[in-house]
Amino acid sequence: MNVNGVEYRTIWLAEDGWAVEIIDQTKLPHAFEIHRLETVEAAALAIGDMLVRGAPLIGATAGYAMALAMRGDSGDDNIVRAHDLLLATRPTAVNLRWALGEMVDLLTPLPAEQRTAAAYRRAAEICDEDAAMCHAIGEHGADLIEKLARAHAGGGNGNGGPVNILTHCNAGWLATVDWGTALAPIYVAHDRGVDVHVWVDETRPRNQGASLTAWELASHGVPHTLITDNAGGHLMQHGMVDLCITGSDRTTADGDVCNKIGTYLKALAAADCGVPFHVALPVSTIDWSMGDGLKETPIEQRDESEVLEISGRDAAGKMHKIRIAPENCRAANYAFDVTPARLVNGLITERGLCAASREGLLGLYPERR
Amino acid sequence: MNVNGVEYRTIWLAEDGWAVEIIDQTKLPHAFEIHRLETVEAAALAIGDMLVRGAPLIGATAGYAMALAMRGDSGDDNIVRAHDLLLATRPTAVNLRWALGEMVDLLTPLPAEQRTAAAYRRAAEICDEDAAMCHAIGEHGADLIEKLARAHAGGGNGNGGPVNILTHCNAGWLATVDWGTALAPIYVAHDRGVDVHVWVDETRPRNQGASLTAWELASHGVPHTLITDNAGGHLMQHGMVDLCITGSDRTTADGDVCNKIGTYLKALAAADCGVPFHVALPVSTIDWSMGDGLKETPIEQRDESEVLEISGRDAAGKMHKIRIAPENCRAANYAFDVTPARLVNGLITERGLCAASREGLLGLYPERR
Repeated sequence: MNVNGVEYRTIWLAEDGWAVEIIDQTKLPHAFEIHRLETVEAAALAIGDMLVRGAPLIGATAGYAMALAMRGDSGDDNIVRAHDLLLATRPTAVNLRWALGEMVDLLTPLPAEQRTAAAYRRAAEICDEDAAMCHAIGEHGADLIEKLARAHAGGGNGNGGPVNILTHCNAGWLATVDWGTALAPIYVAHDRGVDVHVWVDETRPRNQGASLTAWELASHGVPHTLITDNAGGHLMQHGMVDLCITGSDRTTADGDVCNKIGTYLKALAAADCGVPFHVALPVSTIDWSMGDGLKETPIEQRDESEVLEISGRDAAGKMHKIRIAPENCRAANYAFDVTPARLVNGLITERGLCAASREGLLGLYPERR
Repeated sequence: MNVNGVEYRTIWLAEDGWAVEIIDQTKLPHAFEIHRLETVEAAALAIGDMLVRGAPLIGATAGYAMALAMRGDSGDDNIVRAHDLLLATRPTAVNLRWALGEMVDLLTPLPAEQRTAAAYRRAAEICDEDAAMCHAIGEHGADLIEKLARAHAGGGNGNGGPVNILTHCNAGWLATVDWGTALAPIYVAHDRGVDVHVWVDETRPRNQGASLTAWELASHGVPHTLITDNAGGHLMQHGMVDLCITGSDRTTADGDVCNKIGTYLKALAAADCGVPFHVALPVSTIDWSMGDGLKETPIEQRDESEVLEISGRDAAGKMHKIRIAPENCRAANYAFDVTPARLVNGLITERGLCAASREGLLGLYPERR
């Protein structure tokens, strides 16, 4: 997407045709820095230290990381070594495991001298496939937004203003290769000329809304306003939200949505206020083996320091990590929650919209019947 | 309550017998500093800049502020001028309006030379009455907590552990003259020997949970854990909350509760998960003239900088104000939301518990029939 008038993806081949370049997302929103990867070790560090994050982008990075590994040493042992090194960086990331499996299955049967070129080709394909999938999510979701916009113009909510969309966390292009998931419909609608405005939940504790979603939307020129995670309910009570769209880290076959902590609270408010609540997701986040998300999803607990401390930039431009809680205070840091399917009005996938239910999903993915 | 082994209130007369001293709550939790007020202008600033906050403490401070005003100029014009100056500092705070009304009604008929002494006397009474009222709220609420503790011991939720109570924002003794409202039942229960544990919502944007509630509870020795505002729903889904207690900035005659932004989201989760949701309030926060809180309550919008910037202390102990959002990002900052009475399982007042309804309130306050 657009950054200061230049089109970017989140990962690409350098001009020399072999090194890989990424955006160092730990520096956002205060600095836009390109980071060059020349080795599989550097790529593993970039994933582990969250210079890249978001399930689809982690998978794409792992793909190119295997290509870098093959360029260094395309022997059988190094396939295994690179796979294990990369898998250990974020063991719970489903796309990481998937992308590494793809690469190992592709490379192992090939003669060693063909592996490097094949790995680069497949890594590029993984990127292109992800971008196309996200763009398809965007097209389907934008149709929904356009419908709401027409209802406005026709006096639907009587204000004739923009379609107000609330989102939680960052499920934008920075989390994928391009377009994003929850933000893809917003970008496509905006590019079609639909008048949209986004309420951006800051998304404590890691503030991905304030730091990444707000930055993305500003860079692409989409009107938006930052709010605290506490504010969405009030906005919905007062008719200031027309639609909620979030992403999903894992969607069960019954349509339950495991996403960034706090998503459930927004879904409750949307249901209480009659605001449509939609979840945008690529098929890769659907866990067909799981039914009841609330009972079955393991919830990651992260370090309490993420709650107790916040990083940012002072007026002079210097970065600081500050503590907001009393000395000796302890914190709990659950990373995700589960929004039951009954609170989700619809899923937006690369194949179209469906109900958040087994029947709805199987309608779009009949091969899973 | 207890601070490093010394008993404090939040506002008191200085040793010289005329100046007023408060705790500068903007310095908490990193420093405990006493702030001296000598003029009504200083008191208005202290309220506006939230050195004192919480409806009852704002009322008490306004009482003493009128006394400081009379000490400077006890003429009729100055009663009106001081009243207007103070009322403009926090237009949503019903206790502010109430305390100022009390003072104006008391002072206006008096000869000018009697006004200063009368104002100091009434301000002291307002403080004593508030402390007694909060303690009564604590006694009634503690009975409710003890019941839950007995249910635990008898195998109620089967865990035999502490009663887990979630609270939002700071409705502790720092928000009142002493004891607090939402925290008063917890302090009384703890002092009675009941095993309690408090989930403390950090309460963005001003973080009064992280900075004030966590500090208060630690100072008094009550076990607690800090969480982000996003986490409460997940905890309730998983049976980790036995009771929610929040305060109220304004309660309508129908039982709707206007409180710190985000309260509504927690009440929705409590209703969805079957967790009792109670609101502790003194009679002074009841607005008998108002029925439908959602339609009638004006919601204060505060400066966007509170969302865009956060203050805290670095590892070396130095305070910084840091920006968490991109350059040029705009934010909306609604300070309160309204929790409809249908989501409130009970009100805890100084006269006892009642349903969040007109009938419930009139049962406790029959003089309002």
